Amino acid sequence: MKLATSKKEQTRIKERSKKADAKQKNILEMLKSHGAKIYDDLDNGQFPKFSIPSRSVSNIVYDKKLRQYILGTNAAVRSSRNSAQLRSFTQLMWLAFFANRLTHEKKSSTLRDVYYSSQAFAIEFEDQSESDNIIVDLEAVTSKPREDFHIFPEERSSIFGDLTIEYTIPGYEGKTMNLSNHPDGYSIGPSLTTAELVDTSAEIVIAIEKGGLFTRFVEEQVDKKFKSIIINTGGQAPRSTRTLLKRLHEEMKLPVIVLTDGDVYGEHIAMVIKSGSANAAHLRELTVPDAKWVGVWATDIEKYKLPTIPMTESDIKRCYDLQKDPRYQDGIWKKELDVFLKLKRKAELEAFSKYGLTNITDKYLPQKLELAKSL
Amino acid sequence: MKLATSKKEQTRIKERSKKADAKQKNILEMLKSHGAKIYDDLDNGQFPKFSIPSRSVSNIVYDKKLRQYILGTNAAVRSSRNSAQLRSFTQLMWLAFFANRLTHEKKSSTLRDVYYSSQAFAIEFEDQSESDNIIVDLEAVTSKPREDFHIFPEERSSIFGDLTIEYTIPGYEGKTMNLSNHPDGYSIGPSLTTAELVDTSAEIVIAIEKGGLFTRFVEEQVDKKFKSIIINTGGQAPRSTRTLLKRLHEEMKLPVIVLTDGDVYGEHIAMVIKSGSANAAHLRELTVPDAKWVGVWATDIEKYKLPTIPMTESDIKRCYDLQKDPRYQDGIWKKELDVFLKLKRKAELEAFSKYGLTNITDKYLPQKLELAKSL
Repeated sequence: MKLATSKKEQTRIKERSKKADAKQKNILEMLKSHGAKIYDDLDNGQFPKFSIPSRSVSNIVYDKKLRQYILGTNAAVRSSRNSAQLRSFTQLMWLAFFANRLTHEKKSSTLRDVYYSSQAFAIEFEDQSESDNIIVDLEAVTSKPREDFHIFPEERSSIFGDLTIEYTIPGYEGKTMNLSNHPDGYSIGPSLTTAELVDTSAEIVIAIEKGGLFTRFVEEQVDKKFKSIIINTGGQAPRSTRTLLKRLHEEMKLPVIVLTDGDVYGEHIAMVIKSGSANAAHLRELTVPDAKWVGVWATDIEKYKLPTIPMTESDIKRCYDLQKDPRYQDGIWKKELDVFLKLKRKAELEAFSKYGLTNITDKYLPQKLELAKSL
Repeated sequence: MKLATSKKEQTRIKERSKKADAKQKNILEMLKSHGAKIYDDLDNGQFPKFSIPSRSVSNIVYDKKLRQYILGTNAAVRSSRNSAQLRSFTQLMWLAFFANRLTHEKKSSTLRDVYYSSQAFAIEFEDQSESDNIIVDLEAVTSKPREDFHIFPEERSSIFGDLTIEYTIPGYEGKTMNLSNHPDGYSIGPSLTTAELVDTSAEIVIAIEKGGLFTRFVEEQVDKKFKSIIINTGGQAPRSTRTLLKRLHEEMKLPVIVLTDGDVYGEHIAMVIKSGSANAAHLRELTVPDAKWVGVWATDIEKYKLPTIPMTESDIKRCYDLQKDPRYQDGIWKKELDVFLKLKRKAELEAFSKYGLTNITDKYLPQKLELAKSL
């Protein structure tokens, strides 16, 4: 960590700080304008109401151009006039107030925090799933992810590689950090997610499903040998991690490849990084449409003669479910799904250890990196 | 990160490096001596065999002096003469060979890697639970945790605070790192676990069960305000994290306090940090007998009027089970268990958010830190 001191750096920091302030201001104004509408309704002697894009299955459609699920045009009015909606209307009002406060004070919180915080205001939520649901409502109303309101998920993912970031969170503004010095990796949380991406010598981002492989990749210096930033997604990539992947792709112009276990869940981990999940159809900021899934493919199982495990009933059911998903109708997505169903077997990333611990980084990875260029 | 350059530092690095080499040598010699016995048996025309401390329940006893579970004196002979034992005998032989190689080459691996690696040698394991079991056998034979043989668990824990470490892993020897600059925390993995602990200004270690609270504590500068190192255990603390806690206590002379959810599982997370788990009774290096559980206690639920959730059937059963555990026969361990059973309700760390997001760091933590002095 160092403090920027030169004049040029000071100017840069000021610009960044301005940008962060502008983002915060934008969110606060958006919340304010929604609040103003409520006051207007009251001034006009009307029952105040919100218009909320419908998140029902019938209103979730796949957008081929955006390459992700989005919400259709159906919207529901939540009105304080309707006694059946009064409860959720009040909850949403309170949440907007609370989100405003979090954003204003730059305090981070979690879904769970929000649930308990409501009790201080005598706002009633049956349980956390009810408050989680209202948080998604606010996301849908504003089209902004809850992270913009300082409501963060609990992360379990980490990053390693030559990437210099500059923090924007209170107490760390203007401090920079290079993420290539702690080989166990840096946790991805609110401060990394909101940091400016300053500089990198990397030419690619490798997202990998498992911590064990992440450690192996760092140990075998995949970051240096293949000029890469390595990200451990810890299973299904959490939202902040997906946002970070998107930013690395867009702001640093880095291609993103995804390595998962060779099973239907692995394939879908890659798909969610690429095109989001249906239950975040109301957001646009969590996808990396150009991300490439490079393995472990079903066809790799035979090609590399990997040790396998039989697929479970639930694996097989999952395959059939995904076959109906519009995103799995062509290319490797369809092909590999078909082969999984034919083989009825799956293989883990660690299966390459059969050929020696470094086989995956010495042989498999270079082949897949080469192949990724043509995908 | 910086490279040590002064003469004094160079000397220090050499000493550290010598120490790490000595540890490695010690492990390699231990494995060699076990191997030599096998050769001796063969030379003497005898069927080779291993003596393994029994890990059956009847041989797990609580040691009041050590304040942890240990194995009794029963040992079983695993002999190549007995055809029923030939399989596990061969597996253990192979594992010792493989552990020797990992240690020699300073390569890290995982339980899963070991399972798949065996296939390269045509060593048969039915599934990973069989190979995991043999790894515990090797731990029992050598009284060394598998981490010493470079077999690491997948970690999900992280650390933050003014602690300077010096790496010992290949490629990073002599490089130092201060763990107070990345507010999302540093992942705890093989390189941190094996690093030298060089320096700290902290006066206490706070282990906390959840990532959300870890983030809150960093954000509220608990590290600075209370001169502490903060560790997110991510639920039940993984073994490397427990080893790190032990080392911070013994090498840096720091007291360790544990903060968990207010439920029986939280109480036991603290107990496992303090005195280990029965299934690691064959090891001595994973306990912090002086660690103190400071909350959330069952009695805190009433004292702080916390929002609660009803205990489940399984919570209640767990309470009754722990009441039979010798470690829960007195002090707060017994008292809080009794109160949980009386209340039949539990409370999470986030429940303090009812009084504002920073109530837990502004009010609760200082009270508990004060109280810890008298525990």
